[in-house]
Amino acid sequence: MEIEERSEILNTTGMFLLDGKKVRNDVVTDLKKESEKFYQAYSRRPELAIIIVGSDGASLTYVKSKGKLADEVGIKHVDHFLPEDTSEDELLNLIESLNEDDDVDGILVQLPLPAGISEEYVLEKISAEKDVDGFSPLSMGRLLAGYHDNVPCTPKGIMRMLEYYEIPIKGQDVVIIGRSNIVGRPLSILMSEKGADGTVTLCHSKTRDIKKYTASADIVVVAVGSPGFLTSDMVKNGCTIIDVGITRVKDESKKKGYKVVGDVDMESFRDRDVKLSPVPGGVGVMTVAMLMENTIRAALKRKGERI
Amino acid sequence: MEIEERSEILNTTGMFLLDGKKVRNDVVTDLKKESEKFYQAYSRRPELAIIIVGSDGASLTYVKSKGKLADEVGIKHVDHFLPEDTSEDELLNLIESLNEDDDVDGILVQLPLPAGISEEYVLEKISAEKDVDGFSPLSMGRLLAGYHDNVPCTPKGIMRMLEYYEIPIKGQDVVIIGRSNIVGRPLSILMSEKGADGTVTLCHSKTRDIKKYTASADIVVVAVGSPGFLTSDMVKNGCTIIDVGITRVKDESKKKGYKVVGDVDMESFRDRDVKLSPVPGGVGVMTVAMLMENTIRAALKRKGERI
Repeated sequence: MEIEERSEILNTTGMFLLDGKKVRNDVVTDLKKESEKFYQAYSRRPELAIIIVGSDGASLTYVKSKGKLADEVGIKHVDHFLPEDTSEDELLNLIESLNEDDDVDGILVQLPLPAGISEEYVLEKISAEKDVDGFSPLSMGRLLAGYHDNVPCTPKGIMRMLEYYEIPIKGQDVVIIGRSNIVGRPLSILMSEKGADGTVTLCHSKTRDIKKYTASADIVVVAVGSPGFLTSDMVKNGCTIIDVGITRVKDESKKKGYKVVGDVDMESFRDRDVKLSPVPGGVGVMTVAMLMENTIRAALKRKGERI
Repeated sequence: MEIEERSEILNTTGMFLLDGKKVRNDVVTDLKKESEKFYQAYSRRPELAIIIVGSDGASLTYVKSKGKLADEVGIKHVDHFLPEDTSEDELLNLIESLNEDDDVDGILVQLPLPAGISEEYVLEKISAEKDVDGFSPLSMGRLLAGYHDNVPCTPKGIMRMLEYYEIPIKGQDVVIIGRSNIVGRPLSILMSEKGADGTVTLCHSKTRDIKKYTASADIVVVAVGSPGFLTSDMVKNGCTIIDVGITRVKDESKKKGYKVVGDVDMESFRDRDVKLSPVPGGVGVMTVAMLMENTIRAALKRKGERI
């Protein structure tokens, strides 16, 4: 009896963690079926080409986790590891040949690129139908114009997570901190467009008083890459917080020598009545799942299937 | 003495009107020189193709005012008047031939299009280098990605006007009401991107309490098309207000039988300490000037000139 009462208190007034793995597992179960159906229909797997230039540690980790989930879902992936001194022309030529390869459904260029290679030219080179990361100007422009085609994976994952936990956006006061092209900017469009209907304020490093905006927000998304940035005095009770920060912090107790932390000062939120998507275990795992969904979606669309 | 004092009061505490014609005239003076320089260098004028389908009254008025300013600036314009029942294919074919015509620097399709013609397909057909309205997905995506190419004319005109009157955006609290792809959405990007650095909240028809946002705003842009929408109790002293609304209201005293009004309840702002861009006479005239600037810019860029 005592335990039940306590659990009820936790559910109604305590901090509630949004579980990215749970949502991801649901998505992955569906994607496995889709991928199998595709295989039965076309005698091949949906195929994703992953390009990585150089050997940045974090980038290699991301590429590895993408390949692992592709294997699990049943997506064929071909990883192109190019040396650090690859020229822009070589990279553009590779993309060109992948654009023309009928078996390739999705092309992903792992960012950031080495200095000297124009991200602008590279992203614009990827054919829109294969741009599963959704970062090419044409994909971005379609997003802006309200036609959803390849929607960038992290913003898409955040939307899916809110949907899963039935957290309303319509008419809500939404504050997004961080204006990157990968997260904050496209998310601000998704959350404020017709149908979603949130009222979105986009804050950034030049915002004078971020607390002024977060204090009355129903949803706060923080994507600045600064551990401990968001403290509990900045939000109201009942708020939903999505932590998108990823920072590696030295930790001798870990095998790798570091741990990954987000932008939320978790300690300060203990006993606060908020819903919180934490790092790790929150939207990070959703991002890779959305990439797989975009790949299968692109494969089906290329076959002329209604999606 | 009395008059001087009064005028000082008006300047410091009264309503100050931002004069679109004044800014426009400055722009036009520059554009005439640019256009003349282009003619001297290439023995032809920058050329703008304007396409209008059907005979919507407001659209015809806009097309006429565009042609008039083109004449004044020294831009050749070819107006294609197509009948209401033009098919999508015919329109796409015309755009294709204009894309390929080396003498055409800019292509503008007057919106809205008749039902049955996909705005999406039509805008995507215009080659990005000639998309002087900046509405194609690729132009929009470049804007979103932070590379300014063809920036939509009304948002660009608003930015230019604020610059002219030295109204700061950096670190300011900006509220934009209206999320259209033509005004609110691209303007929210321009005002919040790096360099501009405003903190922008995008409000719309599903926003619960617009006054909650406007009350503390330093800049309010209203683009909803609803006369009298913004009243003086919604903003603080010292606020800058940009009225983008255009509504035709019956007025027997006018030759045309109507007058054009904006979204601001002008009467309520009498004696308020605000800066205000009115309708008519505000950003409307800026929009057409920016179209001419985009056309000359496109012409120079197509000749490989640095701009």
